[in-house]
Amino acid sequence: MSLVVVGSMAFDAIETPFGKSNKIVGGAATYIAWSASNFTKPIKQVSVVGGDFPKEELLKLEARGVSVEGVQIKEDEKSFFWSGRYHMDMNTRDTLDTQLNVLANFDPILPDSYQDCEYLMLGNLAPSVQASVINRLNTKPKLVVLDTMNFWMESAMSDLENVIKKVDVLLVNDSEARQLSAEYSLVKAARVILNMGPKYLIIKKGEHGALLFHGNDVFFAPALPLEDVFDPTGAGDTFAGGFIGHIAKTNDISFENMKTAIIVGSAMASFCVEKFGTTRLKEIKKADIDERIQQFVQLVNFDIKLI
Amino acid sequence: MSLVVVGSMAFDAIETPFGKSNKIVGGAATYIAWSASNFTKPIKQVSVVGGDFPKEELLKLEARGVSVEGVQIKEDEKSFFWSGRYHMDMNTRDTLDTQLNVLANFDPILPDSYQDCEYLMLGNLAPSVQASVINRLNTKPKLVVLDTMNFWMESAMSDLENVIKKVDVLLVNDSEARQLSAEYSLVKAARVILNMGPKYLIIKKGEHGALLFHGNDVFFAPALPLEDVFDPTGAGDTFAGGFIGHIAKTNDISFENMKTAIIVGSAMASFCVEKFGTTRLKEIKKADIDERIQQFVQLVNFDIKLI
Repeated sequence: MSLVVVGSMAFDAIETPFGKSNKIVGGAATYIAWSASNFTKPIKQVSVVGGDFPKEELLKLEARGVSVEGVQIKEDEKSFFWSGRYHMDMNTRDTLDTQLNVLANFDPILPDSYQDCEYLMLGNLAPSVQASVINRLNTKPKLVVLDTMNFWMESAMSDLENVIKKVDVLLVNDSEARQLSAEYSLVKAARVILNMGPKYLIIKKGEHGALLFHGNDVFFAPALPLEDVFDPTGAGDTFAGGFIGHIAKTNDISFENMKTAIIVGSAMASFCVEKFGTTRLKEIKKADIDERIQQFVQLVNFDIKLI
Repeated sequence: MSLVVVGSMAFDAIETPFGKSNKIVGGAATYIAWSASNFTKPIKQVSVVGGDFPKEELLKLEARGVSVEGVQIKEDEKSFFWSGRYHMDMNTRDTLDTQLNVLANFDPILPDSYQDCEYLMLGNLAPSVQASVINRLNTKPKLVVLDTMNFWMESAMSDLENVIKKVDVLLVNDSEARQLSAEYSLVKAARVILNMGPKYLIIKKGEHGALLFHGNDVFFAPALPLEDVFDPTGAGDTFAGGFIGHIAKTNDISFENMKTAIIVGSAMASFCVEKFGTTRLKEIKKADIDERIQQFVQLVNFDIKLI
């Protein structure tokens, strides 16, 4: 099933309590594509990079079945750059530097070959850009998933409210859910947000797992308890990539299958944090993923008959 | 199966962002007994109270199959009193007042009828007092579970290290696990703590659920996402009561059954927080508990066959 992924492809510089990276390749759409390409082909990437973005990164993605026809290369400009420092709990971070560069005037182009899009994953971007992609598709996809962040709630709330009316699944973290809903209880927050448009809401809680809300139903997936969390950058995008990748692979948008997709996303995120940037995502094979998903089964499985 | 419960029976005064209680009945052993008595009889209570402790509270427990022969009543003294204020996240709190009173010189007495103890639940108390109960039992119980807190790590670490060598299951929260092990990662913390003696470690994470570690195995139980957490006081004790109550009822100390016991404990804790003090625990019936356990099944159950 055809999956279109929209988002940044960029450079990051990361400091954690355990180390410091140079300027490395990152960006929401990078992580999403690396994660989702374990499950489904073709993936059709929509992004913009500067002349400084390594061409071999695009070739590596193409080799995994990711079309980069929709990735604009602005040779005379620079790629988006973000630099940040994580605190000890790895759930909070300070932004040290943000250089929008090519992202400042990003006008997403959808090649004709992308019009067969059945699944649309809108990575974190300006809500107006996310909306323009939805509007430029001639046919409504089977499922539209949108990720966003607190920055847009502060700077473009009205655009954000407009675009989330048009999506099926909204992805936010716990503090963003609280900010968006003005409710502290995540159960109450979910009810408010589901009334804003999306049919499904996923609240990511980092090391504390993720919740899926739909009507009155709720599903919880833990994060895998890890010996070391080396670098959480991209974990949310990697989660999103596993989630939409599994759904596109199975071509099943039922609530039951979304639960499974969240477990797949959680498994993918657990790899992402093991090394800096996309390093670990580039190493893992199908057998690693299958083994990790079995760890999730072991982690939460209990025998109700013993009660 | 005979279950002996040791811990404080006391008064609390509680402030939360949602309200303030008068001086109400609390104490670890109170919550444990109310919770465990839904699953097993007889429960044999070991505690100490002052003349101010309401006699009808003891009668209510007796009516549920809890023997209070081991509860010393010091008519001329006052019961232990704790007062605290919870922050918005309900996972952190400030102690406003602590009056040890009868607890200052608590010398636990084990009536002869308690010597058939098969399951021993040591609620949070001075580690030396917990150790003396173990030493006064003529026969080693099938399972000894110990709850403790950061206060003893700061004031009586050597006593604590001695007593946890003698127990099968240790219960702490996440920050206490980090303090006890000097490791930030809970996976590493668990390894250090399991090397200190206990065969099983339960790390309680409040609204983020609970982890059970044993050797290289790990199990995770979520907390039920609740609309409102009204008062978290006693939630950990109520969890412990459900855990040991289920194990005593089933007389099965396997790792598989401990997983189920943790789900039972989590279900009981989810009731406790719905009202001030023990109010909710005194209202619920078997049907309420069964329904809530089914909610946990729904919350975590996913179909691996869909992968």
